Order: sequence, then structure tokens, then C-alpha cells
Amino acid sequence: MTHKVDVSDGYGLGSLKDGKPPDATDNANYFCEYAFLYHQMDMLEDAHRTGAYFNAITWNPASFKDKVVLDVGAGTCILSIFAAKAGAKEVFAVEATDMAIRGRKIVEAQGMGHIIKVLQGTVETVTLPSKVDVIISEWMGYLLLRESMLDSVLIARDRFLKPGGALFPSHATLYLAPVGAAKACREKQQSFDGERQHWEDFNGTMRKWYGTDFACMRDEFLEEQRKYYLQTGMFVNLSPKQLVGDGSPLLRLDLLTATLEDLKGADKPCTCSMRISKDTQIEGFVGYFDVDFSGSKENPAKEEVQLTTAPTTETATHWGQQLFGFYPPLQARSGDTLKGTIWIKRQKKNHRLLHLEASFELGQSGQVRDKREDSWFVD
Amino acid sequence: MTHKVDVSDGYGLGSLKDGKPPDATDNANYFCEYAFLYHQMDMLEDAHRTGAYFNAITWNPASFKDKVVLDVGAGTCILSIFAAKAGAKEVFAVEATDMAIRGRKIVEAQGMGHIIKVLQGTVETVTLPSKVDVIISEWMGYLLLRESMLDSVLIARDRFLKPGGALFPSHATLYLAPVGAAKACREKQQSFDGERQHWEDFNGTMRKWYGTDFACMRDEFLEEQRKYYLQTGMFVNLSPKQLVGDGSPLLRLDLLTATLEDLKGADKPCTCSMRISKDTQIEGFVGYFDVDFSGSKENPAKEEVQLTTAPTTETATHWGQQLFGFYPPLQARSGDTLKGTIWIKRQKKNHRLLHLEASFELGQSGQVRDKREDSWFVD
Repeated sequence: MTHKVDVSDGYGLGSLKDGKPPDATDNANYFCEYAFLYHQMDMLEDAHRTGAYFNAITWNPASFKDKVVLDVGAGTCILSIFAAKAGAKEVFAVEATDMAIRGRKIVEAQGMGHIIKVLQGTVETVTLPSKVDVIISEWMGYLLLRESMLDSVLIARDRFLKPGGALFPSHATLYLAPVGAAKACREKQQSFDGERQHWEDFNGTMRKWYGTDFACMRDEFLEEQRKYYLQTGMFVNLSPKQLVGDGSPLLRLDLLTATLEDLKGADKPCTCSMRISKDTQIEGFVGYFDVDFSGSKENPAKEEVQLTTAPTTETATHWGQQLFGFYPPLQARSGDTLKGTIWIKRQKKNHRLLHLEASFELGQSGQVRDKREDSWFVD
Repeated sequence: MTHKVDVSDGYGLGSLKDGKPPDATDNANYFCEYAFLYHQMDMLEDAHRTGAYFNAITWNPASFKDKVVLDVGAGTCILSIFAAKAGAKEVFAVEATDMAIRGRKIVEAQGMGHIIKVLQGTVETVTLPSKVDVIISEWMGYLLLRESMLDSVLIARDRFLKPGGALFPSHATLYLAPVGAAKACREKQQSFDGERQHWEDFNGTMRKWYGTDFACMRDEFLEEQRKYYLQTGMFVNLSPKQLVGDGSPLLRLDLLTATLEDLKGADKPCTCSMRISKDTQIEGFVGYFDVDFSGSKENPAKEEVQLTTAPTTETATHWGQQLFGFYPPLQARSGDTLKGTIWIKRQKKNHRLLHLEASFELGQSGQVRDKREDSWFVD
């Protein structure tokens, strides 16, 4: 962090300051990925994503004109550039990784250096000279909450957003939907079954060649493999016809009022009810999300934009959906409801990854025909 | 680290102690991998590796009978078990990850709990009640030195090895060999060329759709891609006929006398001379290693064993070889010598990964026909 922002612009020394770098372990686990241009391009080239932000911001100049804006996790500063295009008076682009240095160059290349101030450091530790009218951020991870970056947006909101200020996006909804035939789940089951045989071969070899018996590790090995193959969410891009029922909202967040406790999901589970539209096997369920750009009550967006990551026949987003398998599949009848009760927790070893603890009930007319309890990791 | 070793065996309280866990970032970057049974199995199933250690230890009972042994980075404790089979009186198995807990179970399952004491913690921080006669360790990474685990073995040697004690293995040699036709190198070149076009498409899209020009990032992007595609070593398993000259030793280490400074490679470069056996293109070079189990002068191995990771027509080791490309290839004639001068450095951001800074000269009879300077990462 060698660059210091020029503070000779009337704020007074010390009122606009780069922040601290991320914790070293968090950087190794997480932030470091965002320091690659290739990863930034991958996100920028997602036309659903970048297009939604472009539209949400530039179609709503009234929400940005002469406003002070904060961009949380600015990366290449593309959202800050959109805000400047929409008429923002001043934009603070906060980025923890060395991408900040590049963001600054990109901003200069657009001739926007007088509007956009790039600050390197975590948003938890930067200092701004004033409160802001709007916070823009692209914080969503797989299954909406993976990466736990929304924490930083809420902290930024509490530190810097003026009363009546707006967040872009303003709302987020996480959905679950039932999946009929899921080849990916069957392949995982086959791989897991293969590992049972692998273990027998392995232990036979160890006994025969080296006179060493690993039998005491069999259960732990199969538990490790079960977790890896059967209890880890898969990145997929489904088409709508693979669903056997509509998506059902599991979690709705109003970013203006959500709390860190809401995100940590430790105090209460989320529930949803998925209606099954035909007689079918249910091999798994997918999670996906929408975010809405509605502004705030005092600063509403005139043109409301939505970004969805739902299954589509068109080009998919880079988020795809997260697929979780039922092993074995459930046997459903048309008109059944699949009720889920799900704790969305964070993994103990890495708070940016998720752990779902779930129970499901399948049936109709008050009769439960099948029940499942399981847990899945979003790694 | 909940388990404490029973110290009621005559050493006196506190003379045998678990050590500290690894630094959190080092754990996230490195140690965590070794806590998976699947990874341990992958290593155990490498018959070259496990067989070489089995032979080196159990074919040399005179080197182990009634001896005190230290196993550095014991994992599942397989080497400790071999040492016990060879007659060791006592084995200290030191393992930093939670694999220590499993190692302890495996040891108990072999009925060797009275011989092998598993200590969880880094070898830099454990406490042993006595010095040891032999240190056994499987510390080798890609290109021999990746992972920088040999540091820990040398520190263990200096802390715990008796004068005249032996290391198994005792010696290590890193070789380079010239490679003729290397499809992997050509594919990387094609991928890199593809990224040039990718960049143009990307920037065209950003300009057209979002009125934003990323041209100022082009050179940095191509540098990032060059590093990723052309300047990163590749895991390969070559057959000997893909080499166009014999391997030439680049670095020889006597583990009894090597110093940490020798490993860090900061003070002097390594050199080697590869003789080219025919008129050919040289598309790259590979690095691979041998380790020798010769014991020490005072405690020599009667049956010397060697573990080699050289190109082979038989089953390869799990280390394979590391391939580095010349872009464009060199044009060599039979009888040429390819002389390399190579600094094997550690990466600044992660000391367990390597960075080769190299210069090569190709020619014969004192005439240099081609020269190259480049650098490669071993990630």
C-alpha cells in the first residue's frame, strides 16, 4: 500500500485515508483471487451482472446526480465509473487488494480521476471525509451469501450511509427449487461408490506390501469422501425444464435494515415450501438468488432493475446455481409439497464458506411420506 | 490439540511435549491439504515412494535396531511404523495437522503404541526427551524444493540429531533434462495466443456496451497471462524418449551438512550442462529429482536404496516431473550443450512456492548460437 490519496482537496489532512489490508489468512483464503485481472474480466464479461448494474445506475440518474457514492469492493472500479457516468459528484471506490492500483489507472484513463477517489484497504478501516448518499456494491457469492462480503457492505452502511440514503442493490432474495433428474448428482453418487472400492483396494495393498492395516481409518475416509462427493454444493447451470416445481423464497433481505446477525443465521432457521408439479423423482434442489435495485424510500429508483441467477435457457450468469443432492432421491407425486427448514451457517474453519443444516418433509394434505435430514457444504 | 502424550514413562514431566500449530496463514496455504485422508492415500499409493521408504528402512535393520528415531511430518505415521518394524526402540512421530490424531489411531491399531509416540505440532516447537539416532522424513515437493519442508528437517536435525546420526534419505539431487517435442508447451502457447484475442474481444465489449475503455490494462493482463500460461511449471509424466539429452545435476544436497541458506538459494545460482543428442527443437526442459538412502558415515545403510522421479516408461511417481517451456523453442544440433544458470528462489508472497530465474546458452565448441533469459514459477 504505497499510494496515498491526495488529501489537499479541502477535506483537511487525515479525513480521507486508505485503510488496512485484510488479515493475512483471510487474504490467502479469499481476497487474493480478486487481485487477478482474469478473475475481474470473468465478472465483467457476465453481461447479466455488469449489464444489470449498468442499467440500474445509468437508467436512474436522479438517484446519482450530484450525489456522494461509496463503492464497496470496487475491483476495477467499473461500478464507480457507472456512478460517475450517472452524474455522481464524488465516488469513493474502496478496494482491499492491489486491484485498487489498477482501478486507479482505469479511472484515470476514463478521465474521471477528479470524481472517483480510489482507496486501498478494507472498508472496515478506511476513513471517508463525509457520509454518502448511495452505496453501490457487487457482494453476492454462490448461494447469495458465500464469501460473507455482505457483512462489509452492512458495516459500510452503518459507518457511512446518510439517513435516507440508498443501497444498490437494495434487496436480495435466495430461492430453493426442486430438481428432477440431475445427472451431476448421479455422477457424484457413482464417484462415492467408487471410493468404497478404492478403499478396499488401498487397504489390501497396504496390508500385503507393507504389513500395515489401515482398517481403523475406513469410516473416517468414507465420511471424508461423503462430505466431498455427496455433501458439497455443485456449480451448475440448469435449464428451467430441469426443475419440477417453482422456486420458493428461503431468505429475503432488505439491505437497508438487515443486521449482521441476520446474515450469520445462527439464531433461527429459514423455511420454504416447494410445490411439486408432477409425479417424479427429486434428485436434489438448487439454490439461486435475485437482487433488486429499488433504491430507498427517500431516494427510490425510477427504473427498477432486477438481476436474477435463476435457471435459464439463455446465457447463464457466472454464479450459475448451487445444486445439492438427495441420496437416494425422493419419490414425489404431483401436488406434493417439499418443505425445507434450513440453517444457513458459516463454516467454522473459514467464515466465508457456508454449511447448510437442513431437514425436509415431502407429502401433501398434511400427510408426510418422506423425511430427510442432512447437511451440505458450500465450499 | 487436545491430546497430551503420556509422560509417565520415566522422562519426567514436560520432557516430551506436543508443539505449536502452524501459523494460520501457512496452514491455510499449505498444511491444511495434509489433513485429508485422500491426500495421504494418494501418497501412500505411490509405490515408488512408499516402497522406497519401506525398503530403505526394513532392508537396513542394523540402522534402526534399538535406535531412537524421529519422523518429521509423519502424516499417517507410515514411516514410523516401518522404523518400528525395523526394530527401533522408540519413534517420535511429529505431525502438525490433525492427521496426528489419526496417526495415533493407526499406530495403536498396529499394536505399536508403546514404541511410537505421536506428537502434534510443528517440529520447530515440539520438545523431545532425548536426541535421536535417525531422522526419517518424506519432505520432497515438486522440483524437489517446492513446499520448503526440508527447512523443517534441517531444523529438526540441528535440534535433535545425535553426532554421527543418520538421515533417511541422506542425499538429494535435482536434475534438469532437455525436452524435444512437448505438446503441453505448444498447448500453453496456443492458450496464451487465445488470450490476446480474448482481450480484444473483452475490451471491445466493454467499450461498446458500457462506454468504458480498459486499454490501459492490456499490457498488465498479457503479463498476467504470460506468467500463468508460459512461465509456470507444468506437472507432466514424460517417457525417456521425449528427452533429447541426459539429465544433468543442477543441485546436490547432503542432508547432514546442508544449511538453510543452501536451500534459500539467494547467494549463488546453480548451474548445469545438458548435452544434446540429436538435431532437434528443444521445446522445454524438465526438472526431477532422486533421493538416496545411504545413512551416515557412522551408521551407513548396508542396502542402499534410491527413489527417483525421472521420466520412465513404467508407472510414474505422484511427483511426475516439472516441465518449463521455451517460447519459441530452441533449435539445437547434435553435440550441442545447453548450459543453464539458475537461481532457485522462493516466491515473495508464499515462501513454500518457487521462482526460477534462469539464463541458458546453446551451442558447441565454444560458440554460443542462442541465448535465453526467462523466469518460471513453481506454484
